[in-house]
Amino acid sequence: MTNYELVYFELNGRAGGIRLFLDFLQVPFTDTRIPRQDWPTLKPKIKFGQIPVLKILDKGIELPQSVAILRYLATKHGGLGETPEDNAIIDSFADLIQDTIIAVRPWIWSITKNLGEEEQTKQYKETLIPVIKDNFVPPFLKQLKENGSGFLVGKKPTWIDFMLADVVDRVDKIIPPDGKDFIAPLVSHRDKVFSLPNLEKRLEDRKQYIF
Amino acid sequence: MTNYELVYFELNGRAGGIRLFLDFLQVPFTDTRIPRQDWPTLKPKIKFGQIPVLKILDKGIELPQSVAILRYLATKHGGLGETPEDNAIIDSFADLIQDTIIAVRPWIWSITKNLGEEEQTKQYKETLIPVIKDNFVPPFLKQLKENGSGFLVGKKPTWIDFMLADVVDRVDKIIPPDGKDFIAPLVSHRDKVFSLPNLEKRLEDRKQYIF
Repeated sequence: MTNYELVYFELNGRAGGIRLFLDFLQVPFTDTRIPRQDWPTLKPKIKFGQIPVLKILDKGIELPQSVAILRYLATKHGGLGETPEDNAIIDSFADLIQDTIIAVRPWIWSITKNLGEEEQTKQYKETLIPVIKDNFVPPFLKQLKENGSGFLVGKKPTWIDFMLADVVDRVDKIIPPDGKDFIAPLVSHRDKVFSLPNLEKRLEDRKQYIF
Repeated sequence: MTNYELVYFELNGRAGGIRLFLDFLQVPFTDTRIPRQDWPTLKPKIKFGQIPVLKILDKGIELPQSVAILRYLATKHGGLGETPEDNAIIDSFADLIQDTIIAVRPWIWSITKNLGEEEQTKQYKETLIPVIKDNFVPPFLKQLKENGSGFLVGKKPTWIDFMLADVVDRVDKIIPPDGKDFIAPLVSHRDKVFSLPNLEKRLEDRKQYIF
């Protein structure tokens, strides 16, 4: 009997970093995966009408929003920063990742809605690459360089490292080898996070997903 | 000499809730307002290229992202929830507000980019109203009803009350009187927050802004 049920689709998506973080923390959870066709029936019953949702069973709480879930798990089980300032910096980078995911949505839609190769190539070049190259990568690189420990904030892994590594892993899968010099240092960070203990099984499982 | 400098435009916008919260906490700050025409020069020098930014002068830290700023101020000066679960619920509602602001962006753009009355009316009807009515208002109403204190979480005002009241105040200004029955309970919440101590001067100042 676990105390947590994580409800999401049969996808990596916005649950990817959460699943990795739970495994790292060795916190057992029920990993419920909703088939796409069941979503319209489930949606009206779920808080905010959104997944992922973390059900905190001993408190009778349904917690939506992936970043709120990661921060809550860190508060309860470890993986916060060491000072209020570290936590504020972690929070600001988490919100930058959220902004980035939203900014590249036209490109994601071009694929998930099957808008054809021409539109996908257009969105790839005009949306994905500029957003990742100009807005996303530079602040993370600067932070990693200034922090110097190999993790984003402080000396130990915190929840933002899992959120970042999860997203960079997807970007790395998508960008062709000849175009990804500019994310190489973030791929090194991902590799460092992915080599932390307790993640092997999850990393094997997630290989099947593009998103 | 204050320890904080808040940098933003001569607007309410994403600094509105922060300014109110700082006044409520009686935390003095330098309220720097950048003229629009100076933004292109300033942008490359600012962390994430985004404002608002809170400069935490005694730590030499530049903190971007409005929600991270509110949470940090609450951590340092009061206005967090009382339990990890309360804080997680607060966080999830903050992210719901962020999602809402992004979802209504086509409507905001129709006004700020002067796209003409026809497009503005279309975006008002097809974007603003459905998002506010269907996705935004119901979860907040449910939470206020279940919590019962008049504030969103727990018995006392927390930072999310200021974030919500600030946004609802703008929605209330924009929606014509005959169409806003559905936000009336959130307007009552705003009125409760706006009647808290130390806010009079700020409330007078912000009247000049639509956004």
